[in-house]
Amino acid sequence: MIRLANNEDFKYIWPIFKEVVKAGETYAYAPDANEEQAFHIWMEAPVATFVYEDNGQILGTYYLKTNQAGPGQHVCNCGYMVSSLARGKGVATKMCQHSLTQARQLNYQAMQFNFVASTNEQAIYLWHKLGFETVGRLPKAFKHPTQGYVDALVMYQWLAEA
Amino acid sequence: MIRLANNEDFKYIWPIFKEVVKAGETYAYAPDANEEQAFHIWMEAPVATFVYEDNGQILGTYYLKTNQAGPGQHVCNCGYMVSSLARGKGVATKMCQHSLTQARQLNYQAMQFNFVASTNEQAIYLWHKLGFETVGRLPKAFKHPTQGYVDALVMYQWLAEA
Repeated sequence: MIRLANNEDFKYIWPIFKEVVKAGETYAYAPDANEEQAFHIWMEAPVATFVYEDNGQILGTYYLKTNQAGPGQHVCNCGYMVSSLARGKGVATKMCQHSLTQARQLNYQAMQFNFVASTNEQAIYLWHKLGFETVGRLPKAFKHPTQGYVDALVMYQWLAEA
Repeated sequence: MIRLANNEDFKYIWPIFKEVVKAGETYAYAPDANEEQAFHIWMEAPVATFVYEDNGQILGTYYLKTNQAGPGQHVCNCGYMVSSLARGKGVATKMCQHSLTQARQLNYQAMQFNFVASTNEQAIYLWHKLGFETVGRLPKAFKHPTQGYVDALVMYQWLAEA
């Protein structure tokens, strides 16, 4: 149900990306990013990109990448997007759990979310439930389309066993 | 004394970059980054790169870039490097002050440092003195060459007047 994305999948990923980014409520990407830019961001730059497929339909996607180089390269970063047609069905939960497994398999020691809009309460609730801690709060770092400048959170989870 | 860097300056920037990055104690760049990669990181990717020049000698350099796109594009990020020949002379202080002025002129609302090694006490002391707050602590996110996994700090300063 969750598998590596191939370039063909991008035609189903692009509408999800476009919808999420245009809303401007969750991701720090330019709201008017075009298909080529989206392909680079989502498919080329990450270490790996996955899709959540249900009955041949792509309902969600996530990427996994190294968050910082050199002395920070043991920490990865992921981003998840769910189609508006599939919200509330646990797609994000399943993708996040999958990503934590993948991250461990790839020998990352921790996973970090750099920029979670503090208004994105559902996501924050979910990430906490899945083991992430809020380790930072960036005052007014996120410009929300209707609420103006709101805080962004940094969330973090150490993956290695104690 | 502090001016925009041109491509010719890079031959003096490169030894500073190489020395700082190879030490692996402060920057999340690959310690073995080559000259071409360094040129891209330091000269091409940022919005602007500056050098600190004293009697025709380049003693330090910094870059200024946009930290996140879209909803995060009002926050900038800077990185500063000082030659080992010029430490303790206030070069970093002067570059940071200069960068805060530049950031305001470029209409950024805030400046963020994403990844300050918690072992880099001199820098943390300096950034606090210059108005930055520690807004996040990333547990064991920085692999120090001699101290192992240490925390990294996220530091932040809102620039706009109240």
